[in-house]
Amino acid sequence: MFFASDNSGPVAPQVLDALARANEGHAMGYGDDPLSQQVAEDLRALFEAPEAAVYLVPTGTAANALSLACLCPPYATVFCSPAAHIHEDECNAPEFYTGGAKLTLVGDSDRMTPEALRASIAGEETRGVHGPLRGPVSITQLTERGNVYSMEELRALTGVAKEFGLPVHLDGARFANAAVKLGVTPAEMSWKAGVDICVFGGTKNGLMGVEAVLIFDPAARSSSGAVAQNRLAAEFELRRKRGALLFSKHRYLAAQMAAYLEGDLWRDLAGRANARCDQLVQGLKGLDVTLRTEQHANLLFFDLPRRVHRELHAAGAVYSMWDSLDGPDDSIATARLVCDWSLPPEAVSEFTDLLARSL
Amino acid sequence: MFFASDNSGPVAPQVLDALARANEGHAMGYGDDPLSQQVAEDLRALFEAPEAAVYLVPTGTAANALSLACLCPPYATVFCSPAAHIHEDECNAPEFYTGGAKLTLVGDSDRMTPEALRASIAGEETRGVHGPLRGPVSITQLTERGNVYSMEELRALTGVAKEFGLPVHLDGARFANAAVKLGVTPAEMSWKAGVDICVFGGTKNGLMGVEAVLIFDPAARSSSGAVAQNRLAAEFELRRKRGALLFSKHRYLAAQMAAYLEGDLWRDLAGRANARCDQLVQGLKGLDVTLRTEQHANLLFFDLPRRVHRELHAAGAVYSMWDSLDGPDDSIATARLVCDWSLPPEAVSEFTDLLARSL
Amino acid sequence: MFFASDNSGPVAPQVLDALARANEGHAMGYGDDPLSQQVAEDLRALFEAPEAAVYLVPTGTAANALSLACLCPPYATVFCSPAAHIHEDECNAPEFYTGGAKLTLVGDSDRMTPEALRASIAGEETRGVHGPLRGPVSITQLTERGNVYSMEELRALTGVAKEFGLPVHLDGARFANAAVKLGVTPAEMSWKAGVDICVFGGTKNGLMGVEAVLIFDPAARSSSGAVAQNRLAAEFELRRKRGALLFSKHRYLAAQMAAYLEGDLWRDLAGRANARCDQLVQGLKGLDVTLRTEQHANLLFFDLPRRVHRELHAAGAVYSMWDSLDGPDDSIATARLVCDWSLPPEAVSEFTDLLARSL
Amino acid sequence: MFFASDNSGPVAPQVLDALARANEGHAMGYGDDPLSQQVAEDLRALFEAPEAAVYLVPTGTAANALSLACLCPPYATVFCSPAAHIHEDECNAPEFYTGGAKLTLVGDSDRMTPEALRASIAGEETRGVHGPLRGPVSITQLTERGNVYSMEELRALTGVAKEFGLPVHLDGARFANAAVKLGVTPAEMSWKAGVDICVFGGTKNGLMGVEAVLIFDPAARSSSGAVAQNRLAAEFELRRKRGALLFSKHRYLAAQMAAYLEGDLWRDLAGRANARCDQLVQGLKGLDVTLRTEQHANLLFFDLPRRVHRELHAAGAVYSMWDSLDGPDDSIATARLVCDWSLPPEAVSEFTDLLARSL
Repeated sequence: MFFASDNSGPVAPQVLDALARANEGHAMGYGDDPLSQQVAEDLRALFEAPEAAVYLVPTGTAANALSLACLCPPYATVFCSPAAHIHEDECNAPEFYTGGAKLTLVGDSDRMTPEALRASIAGEETRGVHGPLRGPVSITQLTERGNVYSMEELRALTGVAKEFGLPVHLDGARFANAAVKLGVTPAEMSWKAGVDICVFGGTKNGLMGVEAVLIFDPAARSSSGAVAQNRLAAEFELRRKRGALLFSKHRYLAAQMAAYLEGDLWRDLAGRANARCDQLVQGLKGLDVTLRTEQHANLLFFDLPRRVHRELHAAGAVYSMWDSLDGPDDSIATARLVCDWSLPPEAVSEFTDLLARSL
Repeated sequence: MFFASDNSGPVAPQVLDALARANEGHAMGYGDDPLSQQVAEDLRALFEAPEAAVYLVPTGTAANALSLACLCPPYATVFCSPAAHIHEDECNAPEFYTGGAKLTLVGDSDRMTPEALRASIAGEETRGVHGPLRGPVSITQLTERGNVYSMEELRALTGVAKEFGLPVHLDGARFANAAVKLGVTPAEMSWKAGVDICVFGGTKNGLMGVEAVLIFDPAARSSSGAVAQNRLAAEFELRRKRGALLFSKHRYLAAQMAAYLEGDLWRDLAGRANARCDQLVQGLKGLDVTLRTEQHANLLFFDLPRRVHRELHAAGAVYSMWDSLDGPDDSIATARLVCDWSLPPEAVSEFTDLLARSL
Repeated sequence: MFFASDNSGPVAPQVLDALARANEGHAMGYGDDPLSQQVAEDLRALFEAPEAAVYLVPTGTAANALSLACLCPPYATVFCSPAAHIHEDECNAPEFYTGGAKLTLVGDSDRMTPEALRASIAGEETRGVHGPLRGPVSITQLTERGNVYSMEELRALTGVAKEFGLPVHLDGARFANAAVKLGVTPAEMSWKAGVDICVFGGTKNGLMGVEAVLIFDPAARSSSGAVAQNRLAAEFELRRKRGALLFSKHRYLAAQMAAYLEGDLWRDLAGRANARCDQLVQGLKGLDVTLRTEQHANLLFFDLPRRVHRELHAAGAVYSMWDSLDGPDDSIATARLVCDWSLPPEAVSEFTDLLARSL
Repeated sequence: MFFASDNSGPVAPQVLDALARANEGHAMGYGDDPLSQQVAEDLRALFEAPEAAVYLVPTGTAANALSLACLCPPYATVFCSPAAHIHEDECNAPEFYTGGAKLTLVGDSDRMTPEALRASIAGEETRGVHGPLRGPVSITQLTERGNVYSMEELRALTGVAKEFGLPVHLDGARFANAAVKLGVTPAEMSWKAGVDICVFGGTKNGLMGVEAVLIFDPAARSSSGAVAQNRLAAEFELRRKRGALLFSKHRYLAAQMAAYLEGDLWRDLAGRANARCDQLVQGLKGLDVTLRTEQHANLLFFDLPRRVHRELHAAGAVYSMWDSLDGPDDSIATARLVCDWSLPPEAVSEFTDLLARSL
């Protein structure tokens, strides 16, 4: 009954196999090896973006912060939800990598609305050099509260950004879970929907620690072995190195991503995680539980009396509390449960059975 | 005949095995798992430093830049060799992580002398707020030109730093190769010799991508699960996260380091690499070759006519040129050869035989 | 009828006289001249803080950003009102000078309440290294919407900061106007009320461009000619120089401040500005005008129909619109009027007469 | 006998008069006043650069650091002399404003040679993303050791920069002294000689604290009241504000510069300072004094026995020692003497007479 995080599960066995296969003989470092080159091609093919620049980094925070640093000068501001990972969980990494840009929080929920986004953008930059200038819009799909934007919602948000000529960053730490839920292709959920730089997460979906960043600017594509000519791509490469995020033994990042792409493993793993979350939602039906996540993929927030939370924890269920566990027995507190690819169906049944008995 | 870099070889099989063993069930993220805690204890034991704060990061540049950021305020300067990796090969990462500190280059070779270091430190900070202030001394052991400082030389350098009350950072990307060469313990080559923050490299010696950083400040040791109370340790933790360098699936960094420590694998691997370099030096004896590295461990710089370099390259030897390959046949150019743990003795023999025939 | 800003009026004649008097012969630079030393003593005396470190800088943004940089590490967050100058009007200067810290906006008005501040502080730093850490509380007195915090309100806010062990910065760009309004001494409105670093503004109150910063930490006081030993004071000095804000011909900053202090000119000038604003409020009484500023000193926000605004502007009244002037005649828009020390009483009468006729 | 610095003398009386004249009535802030606009036009006319963007800042460090920040991304390096003010005297301000760029020191004297500059540039950027990239060339005219580059030397340096496609920054803190010495126009010594961004210093030549920055990029010219469209000009404006260097009461900067330009006061003041230095050189002729400055304008470095230095200081001569005063009587130490516009001829005679007696 381990629902603490999707970074808590093991790595998919295909990934370990790929690491072992990549571990033969010598290879040039820093991405100049054949496997790294091949994976970049495979990512371009998957995203139907033959001219995209493609980079692998080890953490989601790295993927986000580097992307924003390329899009946002230090005297500008990023528009994002107050629940965004870039605001809540990265210890000022975006501020660090951008050289001191600001984050403007849009609305008061995890899901930005076009109206709130438009009002927020319109409210900035009426003060000339007293600034800040308007910078990129950052969208998290799926959100940190577990909601999946529909394609219509996604396009509406990027549409507002385009009204103001602003670029769009997609924090796709759980891109796979969202795309599987929506039944869309990576291209459909990224550049075809108006995204300029997309993070295609792997770490939360069965890899050890690899995220791909795709810069869709036509002709951004970097040649290997030298600094890219395209401004965005060049900035990404130089900022990645300067951020101490360029792996010398790059083939081991590439091997993980190669396994992730082969036979659409990323879809398979995300499908498993989503299925467990569906099972969880089914199990909660008929019970006196208030769901806080409306369009779930593999995360679920819901409310229970603290007495029940305490009993579940005591019985061995591992999950995060969004409110403190301390409080009267009959007071309500919100929990966050995350299903990862490796979670067995039995763990979910055990949890919902336990919960049913406890209520 | 692959001598291009020690980040080009494969990972030691014990490391892959350890990753597979660590890949069981769920574990808390960000270092709050039992394996990560155990590895920190093991590193403290190896370095005979029970109170040290210990951190794992994925790249050598990360280890260096974070260490310097903890030791050097933005209005100070780091003293280092002009050949230092932090100056030549990190795309301004130290400047980035320190928030804009300066690097003061000491002398004109890869090996700093106590005299040059003292003169350089004395020359700074006679100008009050016109600054910069004096910051840490950074020593690279072994150096980027392949030389090992003797224990006497090392202590003389840290002694100069202590004269001025300055902290000492040791860039130990090849710590293992140097310690094996000198026949000393990790404690002897670090805090017992006056080092305050030590990088214990693994990536160049058979790991996928892990470096340990040890902060020897008594009581720096961080408790898990919260920010450390010690200033240096707290800064390291927060700057690591802010730099996007904290792994969520931290157990896979820990597993690599655990394998590295078990049965002193790090010594075994470094010993193999050093032995190949010894073999190379032996093979060059009697040939008309000018060595540029005087106290080698696993790197060797030497001079040959460009004609010979061209023949060696054409015959399949892979190594870096420190000067351009372009030039008259009989002009001299310097090569850099690196021996990694996986290099077979036959590759060295083949190279020296080829060279003997070519000269 | 010029109400656009308190940085639009002329400099007090006493200030020009002081500049002329200071313009004799040679003097050492960078603050090592007798006049600069004397002014620092005079400021310590005025604030009854013999051990305070005292610095002069040319702009209010400089005073704020340097103060915050000394109090807030880059992985922390500053608590302030969403209307604060540091958030709205400094083009990310606090983010720049702190090296990428964040600003956490407290409540939704210009005046923070103790409850909102406590809730905001409590909400941060429950996430360990995922940060940010809690940083200083920044209070603007008087606020950007023209309100003066009472002494009780001020002490309540600093009290909340002290509950959490956080330092307090006072943005006193209009310190004089607030102190005169409240009838309190500089000491009462700063360190006696729990302020740790105070900006004592001059630019908006008759100087050309000088703000004093007082660091009340006991023994912060800097000796001249060398870097201060106290950490906060040393940081201020070095960051001021690094920010290009240390004047070589420092005596001309000192001369302005000397004139400001002599015979309490600062009180006299602020009293004049406040009196004009009182006159304005009196003139609005009985008219159909909705005041938006409740505890005014020298700024006033109020609502009028756009038709009236347009007539006032056409008749030569100069003031800022807080809402767009565009809109139906009978729609309401908020204006900002600022009274500076030089504003003649006739200008106010002319304005209120005009308004009375227009309504 | 005050030779300590050209920032030690008084302000020219015309400047005080101009300040008094500007001190009438209300004016819009931040440069949107008629006088500021006029001065920008006058500077464009003086430099024969009708499309240049022109900015006033209060310190030389501000002028340099902002200029470099516009020309140098954080992953690049600035080429300059090891004696450059930006390296020696700005407490890492260039590193701060560029966001962590590096300074590459060219040669080992105050005067860069084309050969040393070419070698230095060629030596960088052979390492791709391991960086740093090549950034701007910064030239100081006259140099910090008092030497004036001839027009041929200046053009040779900018020519090397152009070979590599690099922009050129001119640190002209003593621009006037150099231009008067060479008998050239501002245009000849800036854009006509290949300079892209020029600092036209005033603070060391009779102003209180104003430097003009000219960006010669065609069409860089900024319209008032909004952010410039040209990238360089926009960056300068936003970085100036973000650096807390935009004056609200901008008319008082403009008034100083207006006085400086009127009737070529800048030439007159520089001519006086240079004449005093010529007088000093004449006075030293025939004495046993080794000059260290070969092409002087208003600064002179020369060697004397420490006994003589001590006697001169005891007799009331005020000047800086470049070496310590401590040492045997007959040992040699270098002095720096600076002549400012206000230095009376008698002070020079008194000094040289004293020296003649002492030798």
